[in-house]
Amino acid sequence: MKSFLDLADLSTDKIQTLLDLANRLDAHPETEALRGKVLSLLFLSPSLRTLASFQAAMTRLGGGSFVISPDMSIHGLETRPGIVMDGTAAEHIREAVPVIASYGDAIGIRAFAERKNLEHDLSEVEFNALIDLVDTPCINMESAMGHPCQNLADWKTLDDYDVPASGGKFVLSWAYHPKALPLAVPASTLYTAARRGMDVTVLRPDGFELPEPVMRKAKDAADASGGSIVESDDRRAAMDGAHVLYAKSWSSTRHYGDRLADQKLREDYLDWCVDESWFATARDNCHFMHCLPARRGVVVADAVLDGPRSIVIHEARNRMLAQMAVLYELLGA
Amino acid sequence: MKSFLDLADLSTDKIQTLLDLANRLDAHPETEALRGKVLSLLFLSPSLRTLASFQAAMTRLGGGSFVISPDMSIHGLETRPGIVMDGTAAEHIREAVPVIASYGDAIGIRAFAERKNLEHDLSEVEFNALIDLVDTPCINMESAMGHPCQNLADWKTLDDYDVPASGGKFVLSWAYHPKALPLAVPASTLYTAARRGMDVTVLRPDGFELPEPVMRKAKDAADASGGSIVESDDRRAAMDGAHVLYAKSWSSTRHYGDRLADQKLREDYLDWCVDESWFATARDNCHFMHCLPARRGVVVADAVLDGPRSIVIHEARNRMLAQMAVLYELLGA
Amino acid sequence: MKSFLDLADLSTDKIQTLLDLANRLDAHPETEALRGKVLSLLFLSPSLRTLASFQAAMTRLGGGSFVISPDMSIHGLETRPGIVMDGTAAEHIREAVPVIASYGDAIGIRAFAERKNLEHDLSEVEFNALIDLVDTPCINMESAMGHPCQNLADWKTLDDYDVPASGGKFVLSWAYHPKALPLAVPASTLYTAARRGMDVTVLRPDGFELPEPVMRKAKDAADASGGSIVESDDRRAAMDGAHVLYAKSWSSTRHYGDRLADQKLREDYLDWCVDESWFATARDNCHFMHCLPARRGVVVADAVLDGPRSIVIHEARNRMLAQMAVLYELLGA
Repeated sequence: MKSFLDLADLSTDKIQTLLDLANRLDAHPETEALRGKVLSLLFLSPSLRTLASFQAAMTRLGGGSFVISPDMSIHGLETRPGIVMDGTAAEHIREAVPVIASYGDAIGIRAFAERKNLEHDLSEVEFNALIDLVDTPCINMESAMGHPCQNLADWKTLDDYDVPASGGKFVLSWAYHPKALPLAVPASTLYTAARRGMDVTVLRPDGFELPEPVMRKAKDAADASGGSIVESDDRRAAMDGAHVLYAKSWSSTRHYGDRLADQKLREDYLDWCVDESWFATARDNCHFMHCLPARRGVVVADAVLDGPRSIVIHEARNRMLAQMAVLYELLGA
Repeated sequence: MKSFLDLADLSTDKIQTLLDLANRLDAHPETEALRGKVLSLLFLSPSLRTLASFQAAMTRLGGGSFVISPDMSIHGLETRPGIVMDGTAAEHIREAVPVIASYGDAIGIRAFAERKNLEHDLSEVEFNALIDLVDTPCINMESAMGHPCQNLADWKTLDDYDVPASGGKFVLSWAYHPKALPLAVPASTLYTAARRGMDVTVLRPDGFELPEPVMRKAKDAADASGGSIVESDDRRAAMDGAHVLYAKSWSSTRHYGDRLADQKLREDYLDWCVDESWFATARDNCHFMHCLPARRGVVVADAVLDGPRSIVIHEARNRMLAQMAVLYELLGA
Repeated sequence: MKSFLDLADLSTDKIQTLLDLANRLDAHPETEALRGKVLSLLFLSPSLRTLASFQAAMTRLGGGSFVISPDMSIHGLETRPGIVMDGTAAEHIREAVPVIASYGDAIGIRAFAERKNLEHDLSEVEFNALIDLVDTPCINMESAMGHPCQNLADWKTLDDYDVPASGGKFVLSWAYHPKALPLAVPASTLYTAARRGMDVTVLRPDGFELPEPVMRKAKDAADASGGSIVESDDRRAAMDGAHVLYAKSWSSTRHYGDRLADQKLREDYLDWCVDESWFATARDNCHFMHCLPARRGVVVADAVLDGPRSIVIHEARNRMLAQMAVLYELLGA
């Protein structure tokens, strides 16, 4: 494994190896595995879990890390190519990224979607431009369309809770949120559940269909794994017999990059806040998953998030374990 | 020891064990003791000594740490229970705290008093709500009423300078400060000096009495340890024969939560800035202590802070050593 | 070696030892060398390379570090001596620096020039006041007039690219920048190239001569090492036969501390942006160096920075290696 950018780059055997390794490292710490190794962490977008869990992961394996983010007292980072830098920013990402990478044995990069142009974001134009600047192994800490660290952690979480792969019913549901959020988590979560061989329903209101290339990639994965994908805006039908409800808000594909139009559209769906009534037709022990952060009373009711269905803290802890496996594979002797 | 929340939770033997351990780890470093162990550090209030000394402590013991604070590029943390999160904050502390804790073997939490309601702060309502969210060992890095890391470091400092326990005279003095500061340090310092068996005088102007439950807790400790507690607003009498002057500003109990009334009251006491004249009746080598930060020329005169009485840097370094002992006890094999 | 403050403090043998050590530690990592050792990092000015490379360096040697910078949620740092602290800042640097230093085995400090008074900055009044507060080994992470970590990395870079010492031609050129930048890099780079025995030309427009004490110190070094120093504002002549063009903007000595006058003067030299035409009279493989950050299209054209002459990323990586050598010498057993 040279880099960790997208689960779609990995064979099923490799994914299984990472999952096994995550479990092994949890049960049997290897505190000398990455002795003296350094992970560079570059955040161009906010973070809490990723920021904390990668630092913890490197420490647990005997190495270390450093963090660069734009909120620090650095020189101001310019990202636009070809620009004459006579404004505020004193450093261009074209130097900053390879320099930061040169201090580490691997680099993790987070850069959310610009959300101006859908084609642009679907092609990962910006993220690819960043990783093209780097020679060392790269880890996608969330790009425009991908969040493979979350995906691997989610896969492990489904395994941990004995949710069946074949025959497991996974509902990925849109939820209301005051802002138009990126597609990275829903797009890559959909792919992951399909890749795992599950029967996936995308539950979303009219106007919040996921982009066609995202659906197609996931359907191809489902075809290969024996899973399936359907879309619905009928909550009761979608949730019928579900093992898992995975909630996440995302922006409207129809109005991508047009915040006002997206805002207007989403205001009709304020009631898309997950509460216990959503589970009426689900299996009794249907789990609630969310990548976090989750807005309480907006995306999900307190009673669900604090109740026995919620496995979000376990899911978040799996971020660290999944990333330890990735780091071990990328940097281990 | 499961957690480290308040010296009052610990037996005198346990306190002595921690003090001995702090000295041992200073003299004989154990750089493998916490190999691969992670300390999560959550700051909901500003810090310098605590921020630096806990990171240094973990490194010296062979482990590591990570820091989360609201000034970082995280998602905005909501602390109010039961709120509908349709504002700026994207993440609730109810998820953030257990998630952060799940990446570490122990968690340190700092959350200053709200300073709206005294009963509320005296009961540690907020801090207890935070630690209730956590399964791993917790360290109080300063709560509404407690600062046990400072207290243990101060105890060690008194030992280091051979200040007698029985018969040692400890003056805890209010000092002027332009802001109404929390009670955590004065309340827990008073307890600590009493617990150590010292004769303690609380020197403060009228209106700045410490709350009755704080005085009572300390008096009970003094009764058990053979120490004593008196209050005074007479500087010369209070300082008579003193071994130590421990200065600290705090807010008025009388006007707790009422910043304007507190402000009005304290403006009468601008002369409560510790200078050499304060030591006229003290022992010749009476020490000056302060937890820092200290406003020069406001809380204490430069000549005292820079002079031979001042042991504040030694005291601050003891923070690291005391915390190494606590971490070793909580996380060591 | 007690501290690392200025290459001028070191014998030529010691410099060679550090360069050899940097190469050795790159080829043969010593991940136990600084086991359990702590480096305190205090940034009073912005940083990216220094911030990242020192953290990485300590991890690679088996130790750790912590960072304090004013953008953090600390208490606000006052630097003015003798002030009555009744304003915003709650902590004086006179306590903060020794406290931070007390947690580490060495301390790195960055404090840019005030740029109000040239004599003041040339005498390193502020930086010296800071290091006078510290007992532990100190590293200059950039002061008013020095940047020895950069200098050592640059020396190594010249060696790595087989640029001759004796007979090597080194052009240090001023470049346009919208702001009046400090003199630390040009002053100490000039000294370094002269100390290495190179023939150095300072290329700068009228009004941007370096201060006389800076020139004199470098000329003395050149005299001792067999190098030479000349000044010129004639680009073609200066670049004739050059092995290296080292670009950097700096403020006008003539208008030091007078930003408006400096601004007015520099606006005449907007064309001092390094592009390929600058190399017309240079050696074919003349290298382009810059300490970074570099403003693209302002200080240097994209084609040069992205082209084969540019060795700025290699140069930046050498920061880490040079600093590993310094840390190993200061803190190794």
